[in-house]
Amino acid sequence: MFDTIVIGMGPAGLEAGIYLKRYGLNALVIGKDLGALALAKEIENYYALGKMSGKDLAVKGLKEATSLGVLINHQEVISIDYLDNGFSVKTTNNQYETKTVLLATGKSRNSFSLAKPYEGKGISYCATCDGFFYKNKKIGIVGYNNYMLHELNYLKPLTNDITIFTNGNELEVEVDNKVIKDKIVALNGEDKLESVTVGNEIIKLDGLFIALGSQNAFTLAKHLGLMLNKEDLVVDNNYMTNIPGIFAAGDVIGGMLQVVKAASDGARAAEAINKYLRGLK
Amino acid sequence: MFDTIVIGMGPAGLEAGIYLKRYGLNALVIGKDLGALALAKEIENYYALGKMSGKDLAVKGLKEATSLGVLINHQEVISIDYLDNGFSVKTTNNQYETKTVLLATGKSRNSFSLAKPYEGKGISYCATCDGFFYKNKKIGIVGYNNYMLHELNYLKPLTNDITIFTNGNELEVEVDNKVIKDKIVALNGEDKLESVTVGNEIIKLDGLFIALGSQNAFTLAKHLGLMLNKEDLVVDNNYMTNIPGIFAAGDVIGGMLQVVKAASDGARAAEAINKYLRGLK
Repeated sequence: MFDTIVIGMGPAGLEAGIYLKRYGLNALVIGKDLGALALAKEIENYYALGKMSGKDLAVKGLKEATSLGVLINHQEVISIDYLDNGFSVKTTNNQYETKTVLLATGKSRNSFSLAKPYEGKGISYCATCDGFFYKNKKIGIVGYNNYMLHELNYLKPLTNDITIFTNGNELEVEVDNKVIKDKIVALNGEDKLESVTVGNEIIKLDGLFIALGSQNAFTLAKHLGLMLNKEDLVVDNNYMTNIPGIFAAGDVIGGMLQVVKAASDGARAAEAINKYLRGLK
Repeated sequence: MFDTIVIGMGPAGLEAGIYLKRYGLNALVIGKDLGALALAKEIENYYALGKMSGKDLAVKGLKEATSLGVLINHQEVISIDYLDNGFSVKTTNNQYETKTVLLATGKSRNSFSLAKPYEGKGISYCATCDGFFYKNKKIGIVGYNNYMLHELNYLKPLTNDITIFTNGNELEVEVDNKVIKDKIVALNGEDKLESVTVGNEIIKLDGLFIALGSQNAFTLAKHLGLMLNKEDLVVDNNYMTNIPGIFAAGDVIGGMLQVVKAASDGARAAEAINKYLRGLK
């Protein structure tokens, strides 16, 4: 069992990994890619760094963490679930147990804004949470990759009528279900979701599960019952969410979306996790 | 008149300067040296930076800020005073006016712990604040440089009986007064300060002014009426002290004494100052 699993390997996640290592904790950093930083054209306001591309900075950060012995796993997180004594973190290839989790997933840039008005009215972000309500109903899943497949596998035993909406993305996994690749242009329904519009076609649905892109902070939060302020995770002065043992740092908690602030968050969250765990023991 | 004067050119001060520049504010960074960071043997936990000496990191930070056009002044701050519409910052060579001040002076490592029990009982950290109470009395000043001279010049018209205690330091300025170079080994007195012990000699005093080393956050705070929590400046979520227009960032506000946290503080304080000034206009 790990002391901490850090999800995300941008500045917040890797800096947390470096400090957790220094505190002598058994930590694992899991990330599917280098995050939003790697997409930034140029960074020139990170103290003492000079000017470089976001990609170069992100790679430098990864190399540094690796050289300091931080355990890093390039995988995609599919789900986080509660255990009696901690949490279970499932990736595309593995499953890990951990006492605490640090969410450093960055700012979700992959939301499905059409869903907003129907949240709790036919829209779900979590198959394991809400699947049961749609037993033998007609449902859809918006998604195209492993994360979608994870949700699909959970829902399959509950109903035979599942349509996959890739929403314009290429399908990255194999499925037996009906697949619609066009973009969803509208969700319809008076008091609750009744149908979706794709092109000129209206498709009736009782429920729609959003599993688009990666498991991100927003969907994880919905699943775990974490408090949100708009799309930001709410944390206390010790970077802990409303769920004991689940911490968050970096862009995901809002504020300045800057490398230096994210990295500082990571260091300070690591300090807080160390105190939390030493207190528990 | 400057929008902001930043005092200190460690990570917090320089990162603040970089962001203030980016916000288009007319800012000046004043520092006498590169601060405590430059004394650190090795830094290896600052995200993406790799391993280097504190000195090299501090110099890199200074070069970066300079290359981005941050206005930097290598001087020592002697005093900060209130103006009707802002603050006056006096250095060894100049005097500047500014709408706001950001204290990024680092953690004071130059305190005079013997003074503690007699604070408010014959010990003062500010000649302009307390000098009047010692009119025609027998007083001492602990200090050896420009900062001491500044306090001495203020006190001279008030009393003829002033002794300078360099407390083991070399005297860096010229004075007409009696100078004692040995270390002060004890302060004496029942309810209030009555004398100091230097070597085997006991010297009677009514008051002792501490002006040792540089003007630091602790003495500035005493002078300006800033709230302290032990030796840390107290700030709100916007890095503002209890005095509107005076902000603080970095080691001086306590918490993790780490480069990444100090630099992040600087960036966030700059953001807060920008908002504060735009609101004022």
